[in-house]
Amino acid sequence: MKLTTLRTTSGTVAARVDGDKAVELAGFSDVGDLLRRGDLSAAAEASGAEHDLATADLAPVVATPGKIVCVGLNYRNHILEMGRELPEYPTLFTKFPEALIGPRDEIQIPPESDKIDWEGELVVVVGKTVRRADAEQAKAAIAGYTVMNDITMRDYQYRTPQWFQGKAWERSTPVGPVLVTPDELPADAELVTRLDGEEMQRTRIDDLVFDAVALVQYISTIFTLNPGDIIATGTPGGVGHARKPGRYITAGQTVSVSIDGIGEVVNVAVAEKVAGGAEQTAATVGA
Amino acid sequence: MKLTTLRTTSGTVAARVDGDKAVELAGFSDVGDLLRRGDLSAAAEASGAEHDLATADLAPVVATPGKIVCVGLNYRNHILEMGRELPEYPTLFTKFPEALIGPRDEIQIPPESDKIDWEGELVVVVGKTVRRADAEQAKAAIAGYTVMNDITMRDYQYRTPQWFQGKAWERSTPVGPVLVTPDELPADAELVTRLDGEEMQRTRIDDLVFDAVALVQYISTIFTLNPGDIIATGTPGGVGHARKPGRYITAGQTVSVSIDGIGEVVNVAVAEKVAGGAEQTAATVGA
Repeated sequence: MKLTTLRTTSGTVAARVDGDKAVELAGFSDVGDLLRRGDLSAAAEASGAEHDLATADLAPVVATPGKIVCVGLNYRNHILEMGRELPEYPTLFTKFPEALIGPRDEIQIPPESDKIDWEGELVVVVGKTVRRADAEQAKAAIAGYTVMNDITMRDYQYRTPQWFQGKAWERSTPVGPVLVTPDELPADAELVTRLDGEEMQRTRIDDLVFDAVALVQYISTIFTLNPGDIIATGTPGGVGHARKPGRYITAGQTVSVSIDGIGEVVNVAVAEKVAGGAEQTAATVGA
Repeated sequence: MKLTTLRTTSGTVAARVDGDKAVELAGFSDVGDLLRRGDLSAAAEASGAEHDLATADLAPVVATPGKIVCVGLNYRNHILEMGRELPEYPTLFTKFPEALIGPRDEIQIPPESDKIDWEGELVVVVGKTVRRADAEQAKAAIAGYTVMNDITMRDYQYRTPQWFQGKAWERSTPVGPVLVTPDELPADAELVTRLDGEEMQRTRIDDLVFDAVALVQYISTIFTLNPGDIIATGTPGGVGHARKPGRYITAGQTVSVSIDGIGEVVNVAVAEKVAGGAEQTAATVGA
């Protein structure tokens, strides 16, 4: 099954994808709400108003995750090609929900950064409450998968030892277009990132050092994971900042991330319109 | 004015502190809820059921912050005594609300860590929605201040380049006992951390490199801050991990953090009771 979240004139609503149609699941404000309160087997049967998926206005598939946990340094090929050893533990950081945008929304390019980079990622969406999950519990807690472009302001990321401030910019991070249940994700699916059509990243998702089950186990050791929480599993080689010379996303460019079996987020970058006076107030500290 | 959050038999409720009494502010589930929906000047006048503050069951003063932003490396004396240069930008990371406990609750010592450390901190509580705040807007957006012990599992903190996994343990982090409005916080207030009564940290809060206004400005450049969001402003020297030999909190010990004008969080550490089977499932990854 594939699920998505539509924007309608009366707010957002969860929907089931049937071929090229999105069928509203009335009463659930987004896929996160459906996972928290609903029943996926009932959702598989429900009928409702239909929309053309290709032209629908899509929200982030989970609009307001309780938690967004991101993983760094998690693709084997990329780590080995950099001459590093495989990590013993997953590297974790976070975003806030304010960072998320829909899978076809515009990425806001803030005036404060000119080092804006792509990071195509597979995302795990949690469907059950778990703490200290064993492998079986972790597997059962995975509602499905979606796609994220973990847009990163590299200048802010590397201003300090902690990456968070380069990862959390408001309205920067597309997620979607759909959640696919685990049975619909091919084990050998490829992730491909493109900038204005030029391929930038390509990898098989089975090259992860810590796979979805391992991540749910590890993270749930630290705190409870709940339905609608999401885990972005990390990006492979091919980011712009690692190229010589570095390449970054500029206003007017289109960046896409696709994963076989899920679909793609495809987003135009636009210069953020900032209210008057922001130029002198932005980044006052340390500037 | 001082505000707190009480646990009652019918759930949590915000309260105004009048001397040694806490006066319920009916209709507001915690101080965060009051900041989002309420009116502080009305709260100053409201009457309600009274409780003895000394014996009241206190929740985290903001029970479920929308965001918890933490700052590292922010006390001047400590940075200089370590031979480091003062940072140009604040170092930011996060916790999730699941980490928070009340100011007198037990700190859960998980079986997975034996390197549990204190970090006494001044906390800024946001009272207005701001983005790219200038200094005046940032100052006006500060509802008040409280105290946190940013309990840190040092082994997990340093497993990877990112500190988050050592900072986010469930039910680890006391916050409270009250929010004081800015007029009630002495500029020369001292922060003192004690372990079983032995002084571990002492500093004046005006030794921050990035003060409350600067932090609200900087953070709001990246994303919107909303009422009830909290910013933990960093810890001074004297943490256990930097001592030779290192000192850590063990079950049965009492750790306190006090700031003049606010009060103290004082917490007994207890070995976390983990449901059967956790020992073999915990920390399976990379163990």
